[in-house]
Amino acid sequence: MTEYPKKVYLNGKILNHSEAKISVFDRGFLFGDSIYEVVAQINGKFFYGQKHFQRLDKSLKKVDITFDKSILESSIHKLLEASDLTGQDCILYIQVTRGIAPRAHSYPQNVAPTLMMYASRKTLPDINQTHASVITIPDQRWLRCDIKTTSLIGNVMANDHVTKQGYYEALFVRNGVITEASHCNVFFVKNNVIYTHPANEFILNGITRQIVLEICSDLHLEVREEAIQQNSINQMHEAFLTGTTVQIASVRQIDDHIFYDGEESGEVVKKLQQAFLKIKDKQ
Amino acid sequence: MTEYPKKVYLNGKILNHSEAKISVFDRGFLFGDSIYEVVAQINGKFFYGQKHFQRLDKSLKKVDITFDKSILESSIHKLLEASDLTGQDCILYIQVTRGIAPRAHSYPQNVAPTLMMYASRKTLPDINQTHASVITIPDQRWLRCDIKTTSLIGNVMANDHVTKQGYYEALFVRNGVITEASHCNVFFVKNNVIYTHPANEFILNGITRQIVLEICSDLHLEVREEAIQQNSINQMHEAFLTGTTVQIASVRQIDDHIFYDGEESGEVVKKLQQAFLKIKDKQ
Repeated sequence: MTEYPKKVYLNGKILNHSEAKISVFDRGFLFGDSIYEVVAQINGKFFYGQKHFQRLDKSLKKVDITFDKSILESSIHKLLEASDLTGQDCILYIQVTRGIAPRAHSYPQNVAPTLMMYASRKTLPDINQTHASVITIPDQRWLRCDIKTTSLIGNVMANDHVTKQGYYEALFVRNGVITEASHCNVFFVKNNVIYTHPANEFILNGITRQIVLEICSDLHLEVREEAIQQNSINQMHEAFLTGTTVQIASVRQIDDHIFYDGEESGEVVKKLQQAFLKIKDKQ
Repeated sequence: MTEYPKKVYLNGKILNHSEAKISVFDRGFLFGDSIYEVVAQINGKFFYGQKHFQRLDKSLKKVDITFDKSILESSIHKLLEASDLTGQDCILYIQVTRGIAPRAHSYPQNVAPTLMMYASRKTLPDINQTHASVITIPDQRWLRCDIKTTSLIGNVMANDHVTKQGYYEALFVRNGVITEASHCNVFFVKNNVIYTHPANEFILNGITRQIVLEICSDLHLEVREEAIQQNSINQMHEAFLTGTTVQIASVRQIDDHIFYDGEESGEVVKKLQQAFLKIKDKQ
């Protein structure tokens, strides 16, 4: 089971998790009016940290939250130190809300954003050994999935629905095509060509998704950023999920369609996992 | 400007607004995983209180939050007393979250929901004298707008976008039709027939919307719960918004289409506003 982190950073203070409390008038609480980011520290460095921090910045700009990101570096340093995680493998969670104000829909003026962060010790496996069974589910989320907001009820409902039934993830279907999963991106492979939904407003452009695209380019694997129809899944040869903590997870089964039995992932997935491991080792 | 309420009820305690703090691990904060309700106290009674409390219950069931609503009555009593609002005109805000747990998408087990409430003194006008100018905006929200969740970033973005430009509300357009507004329902009138979007998953079935439908029935006004095409707005004769605090607000203008100049609302809107006032006076 997931546990509470040792320490929480909240607006400049380092607190025990039980003391880390925010106003009920924080817009993160009243409106889901906030942005978050999750980044892994691997071999003493934030893995593609710059890309994560840039994405945080982009999401904040998309919802017009003005946040001075210059405080991030020293604050993260302080948090990791207090958490005994300096240089250690861990997952850092960052949330920035629009701030605290009496409840009214429109954005308040002259309000300081709330910064909340914590880090949890976690060493990601060299290669994710999962052979995931997943199911499709209607994509009921909003139309700005490119924004990494905490208004996540659509994601948590879908995730709970499938994990309660023993599945690894929910693949969202919108207008007949697979968009992404409840907290991962999705890729397919057919005749050595790699397919994934284009990075538009229907998906979050995952950093691991972007790394996989770089790897494909390095390995001269053809990529088509095209959405796959739900009714074409059975014509695909391989499938996999990507995400910051999931890394690259092979998909064994989607609904009734079985890609492979047992524990032998497809060739392309294995190749990408090996290449991903090399990138981690190099950093 | 909106002000903080005198007191906040939080999980059994009555607190000053500056002391009302919840854990940053509350799922209301991390995931927008919570439900809310807003109800007006008028003439010493909650106006259509039972309907509001039933809707709270329905929303909670739709997202599988188990909440013992038997504590509500005495808790509200305690809150109103501490707020010097017993029997007074006020607006009561109620929020129930799934509770506090280490961050993981799927629902935690054996977690107590968080109940947060506050009441603010407010006497609603007999009749809302607004002559609203509104604009249309793409409906980018999720596909379960029937659930009154706090994952509201789509609503607040739209609301902020239009109010910053001086408009009263944003009318959402999905698939070419008007669904509702960022925190109101929308009605149209054409040849004495009243039109409003059907109460399906694209709108929140407002209590005031339901009261207006009852009034129409009493007044033998024909109602069609049919969505109006955005490009048919200019064929409509009247339009109005409904909501708990907005009550019934006449719409003077939608985008470039002007329903009337000056301050003379349409005949049907005026009739409904008078009938609504009678209902309030009677309770």
